[in-house]
Amino acid sequence: MLRQASDSLSLRAKRAGLHEFTKSVESWLSGTGITQGVLTLFCRHTSASLLIQENAAPAVRRDLERYLDRLAPESDAYEHDDEGPDDMPAHLRTALTQTQISIPVHNGRMALGTWQGIFLFEHRQAAPERQIVLHLVGE
Amino acid sequence: MLRQASDSLSLRAKRAGLHEFTKSVESWLSGTGITQGVLTLFCRHTSASLLIQENAAPAVRRDLERYLDRLAPESDAYEHDDEGPDDMPAHLRTALTQTQISIPVHNGRMALGTWQGIFLFEHRQAAPERQIVLHLVGE
Amino acid sequence: MLRQASDSLSLRAKRAGLHEFTKSVESWLSGTGITQGVLTLFCRHTSASLLIQENAAPAVRRDLERYLDRLAPESDAYEHDDEGPDDMPAHLRTALTQTQISIPVHNGRMALGTWQGIFLFEHRQAAPERQIVLHLVGE
Repeated sequence: MLRQASDSLSLRAKRAGLHEFTKSVESWLSGTGITQGVLTLFCRHTSASLLIQENAAPAVRRDLERYLDRLAPESDAYEHDDEGPDDMPAHLRTALTQTQISIPVHNGRMALGTWQGIFLFEHRQAAPERQIVLHLVGE
Repeated sequence: MLRQASDSLSLRAKRAGLHEFTKSVESWLSGTGITQGVLTLFCRHTSASLLIQENAAPAVRRDLERYLDRLAPESDAYEHDDEGPDDMPAHLRTALTQTQISIPVHNGRMALGTWQGIFLFEHRQAAPERQIVLHLVGE
Repeated sequence: MLRQASDSLSLRAKRAGLHEFTKSVESWLSGTGITQGVLTLFCRHTSASLLIQENAAPAVRRDLERYLDRLAPESDAYEHDDEGPDDMPAHLRTALTQTQISIPVHNGRMALGTWQGIFLFEHRQAAPERQIVLHLVGE
């Protein structure tokens, strides 16, 4: 019989950039007792996002961070700058990545590939605490 | 016992850009009687997309619209221009944002953050009617 | 009564770019016997992604491929280049598109729009076999 579980993770990044939290999700998942299903992660913010990316080479993460710094630069002129030069670029970088990711669960594990990790992509320099909502349906 | 509900919303934007429809989704959600679950929104088009973004400052939305205008500009040369200069940029801007968003539901409400709204991102100047499919599983 | 089904598709693209596999998903879906629900597709890789895009005009796909070639170019300098000049651009193009897509299912069919197809977006020149995990919950 299908059932569901849900919860919320609080994360605080020490700096802007990619921060892996795969293990926190794995730990929560194993506590639910649900072994087959689909897990949804939802980021409750518009200046931080979610990304599944390469979990091994730190250089990939650094290149990704520098790339988005260039693609949505602080140096551009924006109408909205209430909270400083990193405010609007944070919204743009969030729009270009993901606010939500769903991952199938099989045999008690997320169906991530060997090189995939789950990352919070913090886009603000002075990062507040972030909440990620977890929802799982399965059996 | 888990059950599901589904429906379709028709939206027509008066101009290209971001159009919030959070309240329409909330209204539909409350009518389903499902209070815990996960809601999926799916946009049935390739020249309009979905985005969760800042619901308070209109300047954020204007900056976002201008940014995508620059990132995938009408002034570039495209092979595909059957429906005018905004045709191919509309496909590109759709590819860079989202066609689908899933949002956990808790205590009868979507788990959106305080500053999050749900937007149709219309990328065509002469916008046709758009259909957003809603699916909810929960109890 | 709700139930679920899951599986994995193996795809190998002959070249980098967009490769439609809508029919493979339709075929799997009809075999499950589930006619109302929500289907999740998850790509287990960080250098290939998923995209729902225009299924009719090949020029749209060529423009999209050329656009991402320009937006995250091989000619830029990257710290990470272990596997050649297309390695890091592949990660960037994956980050800008999708790793996961969920599609409502209604009357035994995915709720895709008339012009929507499901594509594997292969970002490597020498593409390995790719795995797409399918998960369906419904009845």
